[in-house]
Amino acid sequence: MDFSTPARAQRFLPEVSAFVRDELQPVELDVLRDGFTASAGRLRALRDKVKAMGYWAPHMPEELGGMQLGLVDHALMSEALGHSVLGHYVFGCPAPDAGNMEILHKFGSEAQKERWLAPLVAGEMRSCFSMTEPEHAGSNPTRMSCSARREGDHYVINGHKWFTTAADGSDFAIVMAVTDPQGDAYRQASMIIVPTNTPGFDLVRNIPIMGDAGEAWASHGEIQYRDVRVPVDNLLGQEHAAFAIAQERLGPGRIHHCMRWLGICERALDMMCRRAAERDMGEGKPLASKQIVQAWIAESRAAINASRLSVLQAAWKIENEGFYAAREEISLIKFFVAEVMMKVIDRAIQVHGALGITSDTILSWYYAHERGSRIYDGPDEVHKMVVARRMLKAYAKGGGK
Amino acid sequence: MDFSTPARAQRFLPEVSAFVRDELQPVELDVLRDGFTASAGRLRALRDKVKAMGYWAPHMPEELGGMQLGLVDHALMSEALGHSVLGHYVFGCPAPDAGNMEILHKFGSEAQKERWLAPLVAGEMRSCFSMTEPEHAGSNPTRMSCSARREGDHYVINGHKWFTTAADGSDFAIVMAVTDPQGDAYRQASMIIVPTNTPGFDLVRNIPIMGDAGEAWASHGEIQYRDVRVPVDNLLGQEHAAFAIAQERLGPGRIHHCMRWLGICERALDMMCRRAAERDMGEGKPLASKQIVQAWIAESRAAINASRLSVLQAAWKIENEGFYAAREEISLIKFFVAEVMMKVIDRAIQVHGALGITSDTILSWYYAHERGSRIYDGPDEVHKMVVARRMLKAYAKGGGK
Amino acid sequence: MDFSTPARAQRFLPEVSAFVRDELQPVELDVLRDGFTASAGRLRALRDKVKAMGYWAPHMPEELGGMQLGLVDHALMSEALGHSVLGHYVFGCPAPDAGNMEILHKFGSEAQKERWLAPLVAGEMRSCFSMTEPEHAGSNPTRMSCSARREGDHYVINGHKWFTTAADGSDFAIVMAVTDPQGDAYRQASMIIVPTNTPGFDLVRNIPIMGDAGEAWASHGEIQYRDVRVPVDNLLGQEHAAFAIAQERLGPGRIHHCMRWLGICERALDMMCRRAAERDMGEGKPLASKQIVQAWIAESRAAINASRLSVLQAAWKIENEGFYAAREEISLIKFFVAEVMMKVIDRAIQVHGALGITSDTILSWYYAHERGSRIYDGPDEVHKMVVARRMLKAYAKGGGK
Amino acid sequence: MDFSTPARAQRFLPEVSAFVRDELQPVELDVLRDGFTASAGRLRALRDKVKAMGYWAPHMPEELGGMQLGLVDHALMSEALGHSVLGHYVFGCPAPDAGNMEILHKFGSEAQKERWLAPLVAGEMRSCFSMTEPEHAGSNPTRMSCSARREGDHYVINGHKWFTTAADGSDFAIVMAVTDPQGDAYRQASMIIVPTNTPGFDLVRNIPIMGDAGEAWASHGEIQYRDVRVPVDNLLGQEHAAFAIAQERLGPGRIHHCMRWLGICERALDMMCRRAAERDMGEGKPLASKQIVQAWIAESRAAINASRLSVLQAAWKIENEGFYAAREEISLIKFFVAEVMMKVIDRAIQVHGALGITSDTILSWYYAHERGSRIYDGPDEVHKMVVARRMLKAYAKGGGK
Repeated sequence: MDFSTPARAQRFLPEVSAFVRDELQPVELDVLRDGFTASAGRLRALRDKVKAMGYWAPHMPEELGGMQLGLVDHALMSEALGHSVLGHYVFGCPAPDAGNMEILHKFGSEAQKERWLAPLVAGEMRSCFSMTEPEHAGSNPTRMSCSARREGDHYVINGHKWFTTAADGSDFAIVMAVTDPQGDAYRQASMIIVPTNTPGFDLVRNIPIMGDAGEAWASHGEIQYRDVRVPVDNLLGQEHAAFAIAQERLGPGRIHHCMRWLGICERALDMMCRRAAERDMGEGKPLASKQIVQAWIAESRAAINASRLSVLQAAWKIENEGFYAAREEISLIKFFVAEVMMKVIDRAIQVHGALGITSDTILSWYYAHERGSRIYDGPDEVHKMVVARRMLKAYAKGGGK
Repeated sequence: MDFSTPARAQRFLPEVSAFVRDELQPVELDVLRDGFTASAGRLRALRDKVKAMGYWAPHMPEELGGMQLGLVDHALMSEALGHSVLGHYVFGCPAPDAGNMEILHKFGSEAQKERWLAPLVAGEMRSCFSMTEPEHAGSNPTRMSCSARREGDHYVINGHKWFTTAADGSDFAIVMAVTDPQGDAYRQASMIIVPTNTPGFDLVRNIPIMGDAGEAWASHGEIQYRDVRVPVDNLLGQEHAAFAIAQERLGPGRIHHCMRWLGICERALDMMCRRAAERDMGEGKPLASKQIVQAWIAESRAAINASRLSVLQAAWKIENEGFYAAREEISLIKFFVAEVMMKVIDRAIQVHGALGITSDTILSWYYAHERGSRIYDGPDEVHKMVVARRMLKAYAKGGGK
Repeated sequence: MDFSTPARAQRFLPEVSAFVRDELQPVELDVLRDGFTASAGRLRALRDKVKAMGYWAPHMPEELGGMQLGLVDHALMSEALGHSVLGHYVFGCPAPDAGNMEILHKFGSEAQKERWLAPLVAGEMRSCFSMTEPEHAGSNPTRMSCSARREGDHYVINGHKWFTTAADGSDFAIVMAVTDPQGDAYRQASMIIVPTNTPGFDLVRNIPIMGDAGEAWASHGEIQYRDVRVPVDNLLGQEHAAFAIAQERLGPGRIHHCMRWLGICERALDMMCRRAAERDMGEGKPLASKQIVQAWIAESRAAINASRLSVLQAAWKIENEGFYAAREEISLIKFFVAEVMMKVIDRAIQVHGALGITSDTILSWYYAHERGSRIYDGPDEVHKMVVARRMLKAYAKGGGK
Repeated sequence: MDFSTPARAQRFLPEVSAFVRDELQPVELDVLRDGFTASAGRLRALRDKVKAMGYWAPHMPEELGGMQLGLVDHALMSEALGHSVLGHYVFGCPAPDAGNMEILHKFGSEAQKERWLAPLVAGEMRSCFSMTEPEHAGSNPTRMSCSARREGDHYVINGHKWFTTAADGSDFAIVMAVTDPQGDAYRQASMIIVPTNTPGFDLVRNIPIMGDAGEAWASHGEIQYRDVRVPVDNLLGQEHAAFAIAQERLGPGRIHHCMRWLGICERALDMMCRRAAERDMGEGKPLASKQIVQAWIAESRAAINASRLSVLQAAWKIENEGFYAAREEISLIKFFVAEVMMKVIDRAIQVHGALGITSDTILSWYYAHERGSRIYDGPDEVHKMVVARRMLKAYAKGGGK
């Protein structure tokens, strides 16, 4: 067993963390207030710095201009970037682009890679991933109404999607649509690349989350697809294979998300400690002298450490034994870490008092915008059921250890 | 003992509840999206209906145009109104106006009542209550920097306040300011009425809460007072008596708040049940068939019922034995009910899935805007300390039951 | 609404509470250590004192020698008695005798009352209630294997029961046994009185609970019924009506239990406060100065108060509107109060440190022996499902408030 | 990073686990019921088997007859042994003997090693560690009343100890006693070896824990030391160095305990799954089909995995960077894992229903006897304070990350 930070991560983490702290955290609230569009210049300059430092697109192969980090190294990178809302964006690995890059790289044709992947990795395009539908529980990716009807050399797509993250301003969407309604539940849908300027692609709105619709990358779109016609060449991977491709996307995506959440946890804990140390409660005693605050700090530290080890172990297992072997771990970290994060954020807010609920701190943004962590990719309750049922199979007929 | 709903409340509750459900809930999301200013006409029409029905200003004496409800009856009214964000506003008893009316009625001079109270009750003016300061923990109302220096027949006020609810568009503020810095901790500050058009009164901004700054009544202002000069006649009650007056304001205010929270709880629970019953999970089974959802529903019901009884008992005790006798209960319900509310809202969101975090339901507004309930009027942790220390006094020297 | 303690309870509570505190609490640990048999004389003397004071059998009619308290008054009595493990026993209303008295009084024939009820009320006999079977979930009283076959003028009973509280030393058992296996689920079983000296009645053992088998009244028996033959006259109430009679037994029984639990809560909270005030942490500071301990005290106080109001409201509703109208409340208090109790006991133990887990305090006895509260009468989870499903019916077809 | 089980552990774990499951679990309830004294023969036979298999005294050097496992390996061994109450005892590494062996090995003189350590490792002697005093909070090892007065070549010990685990039948105690009351807080006490047959050593009683006093190894003694006279040669390590030696004992001891707790967790989870799969709820559906049970299983799995990684990481850090570097981790795992364990045990009991609280399953023994885990070695609350204060130091003067 070896719990030491890998050598490569030991080299890049200090510089990356310093950049996030010194260059991103100070401008973050401004960017969120002004919007990503108004902040385009500022963000581009930051991205250029990152590229110059050699930390661009950490999850992509070197030949595509990335760092080619393994999953454990990228997990540690993702935590470091998670210390700012802007981290992943500025380092060229924001969701959903990061996942889209991965499946384009793995399943895309050469033509698709040239046309979509190259500019995506370069940060010259943005993309979105259009799966969730308002009429169906997001936890079940086999139930879907959006259809892609084959007409000659084209697919004609009709459907209603929402929570298509970053649709606003995206150049293309990867859409999950049913191509074989009669097929096996896991073999009905295909993934199709749809340029967002295709007629019939209608971004109805950016859905307001807790009152904030956001814009550009930081938004979640509701989209109507009405007779959207794209060439069959836009099929990504094999026909009817959307579910399998989505699974491939899921494992590393879960690791990225969970480690990003841990970055948020660390930041919130850091802010909690700082505020507690600085806030004077009278008689020269800081808030940090209160035992409840101390307990929150210690409980947060314990839960964060335990979470990190769990995610890194899952990443290590995917890297060493593959996604299938690690699927229990991948389900477990989803709900375990999301709950820890929301609790740590909540405590940090409470320690900040009234300030904590204002937009003067990033905590309130986390509180509102990360609440979805317990819902997206399937609500925590579903993941718990899935894990338990798998575990219980061993006991079904007098089995068990 | 008698747990039956009082006769008067039995009469007004059905009609009030129906009005809230049929007239307020359907327009609520529109008003929140469009803002209170743009919705002024619509809101005035609703207020006129309420006046016509005879339910205006339930907490005010009949001679001032109110219903003159006792505290228990008003508590039940407050819960009914709490089923919509607009309830208290449309019925003429929104915070902070409601509390300001109460102290103006109890401590105001005849001239003050004529100039400020009458139009306030009539709904022709709006007001705010300017107590909390960013530099001091809000939980300790004896620590305050804002000062009111006597100069001849005027006070000259300087200070920095925030979380002055509804300051935006208010006609006047009731300001807590130190008039005797050398005095006993509880006898330093005075309450002073400050018209908001007085030179030096500067509403810096509406503080964004979770990204939403709101406006008009639904906002929380940050205010700079710079040499704000008002006549000494604007003193409310006795000089240096602000703390005692604030205490008077506190008891009924706590009851109103807690019962409003229970209205929110009931609404969230109702939405939770409805969504669970309607959401199809496949195979013809509704979400309501899931045992965890059922447990949430039952646990919410139990906690809400227990909370309501606790608040009503506190209201009853204030009415029958006075504020001082009931101060333990008043502290207890603060943290007990706030926690129940936030948990019920959180569960309702989880049952709604992705929809729950969007502004398409009122749940997300509650989640963001009621988070403050565990902070304002003193964080829960402070109330717990206060209650425990009072209880522990009996044991200090081998005492106890 | 009226939250004041009823006049009659105001009269008896002080004296009863003083007796429990001064006469029962000091001998309680001795009785538990020595056993009920060895303590028979001591307990008889205490019972005689109670009879002399006029507080014997509070739930029984005066003509039978009881106090004839209504349900609310008895609820308050039950809480007062709950301050000692010995309370209900010494006051002539221990479970399961109390419930058996109630159904014998309501459903028994004159002969049965004379032979069994009279000596039971007088404290000259002890009884048990034999329902739960190890092979079936206790939460479902319609599933039962124990059978009573009619043979001429006798029933012949065969079955396996456990958790028959107080079977050890009981004079008779009221047994639930299937008399009509073909009948409707709720009309299969009958209640039959079985003298424990009937051949075939075999008390296999007192089941050790957390290592402590107890004895006499404080025990839970496992019983084999092997061809136990009793006259048909021993049928209690109508044939096949056991379920309905058990329901009658349930409502008041739930109130008694929950209020007894609240007595335990109050005692544990009192001990928590006392220990916190007395335990020196060094530097002259008591444990009570710690904020976490303070929070536990305040949270316990709030939850206990809320629980008590919930139980009293349920008792009031049963008294005023009947068992059927109050069945939601009866389910709710079961799980709500049990959880509060276990949490308060747990905190009290933690405040006592190592002492808390020893048998030198009553807390450890509560911790071990009241853990069953979340299980018996149906596990909490089942009650939550029952409540939720009833609530959800209103929403099933687009219904709801 | 490498999360794979170390090669040596991969070799011994299967056989050890099988032995625990096949040889220890089946006799465990019998031994607990009959007592360790009555079971002496049976236990000796089991120990002989373990010796024959080469797994005796895993934490001791090979030259002393042990396996000489490193801390990580021994951690994994400790979890495997934790699957039975008898595990550590039968494998020759029960607390407090295990810790006593470690300090005798590290600090003992040659004579001490020969007289005390050799037979202890061989399993021919038993020992106890006498530190905690009823009059002082156990969380503060610097406050102690027990004194050892130097008189010529002897120490004369007077004091009152309790929770001296396994004192009953021990051959010697290692006693912490104040030898320099005027010294620095951390340099007042010494460790002294006291044969239990020394005049003045009085084992007053085995303290009943939740009603069960236990005996022999499975007991906690209360001891009076009255003028107990031992030669100065019985001093262990340097004079006044007891605190430092106790610290050395603490780190590995914490790892052993926490991993033993994880063994308990795994066992409880296994029992939970098995019971859920086997218990029929009617209509052919097992208890395992209930979503709440599934959630408990999944949440337990996640928390147990996270706990194990946390403890192993702490063990790895102690092994690689020393106790001092790892002291934060050592504090964190104490309260984190204890809470997880008590929650898992509690859920397992609830899944077992009434059976769960009986002594027919090991769960009730765990529930009662492991409750102390949140108290001994310092209550969880103290560890939280310690961790938080250390963390907060970095922020004290505007510091922080």
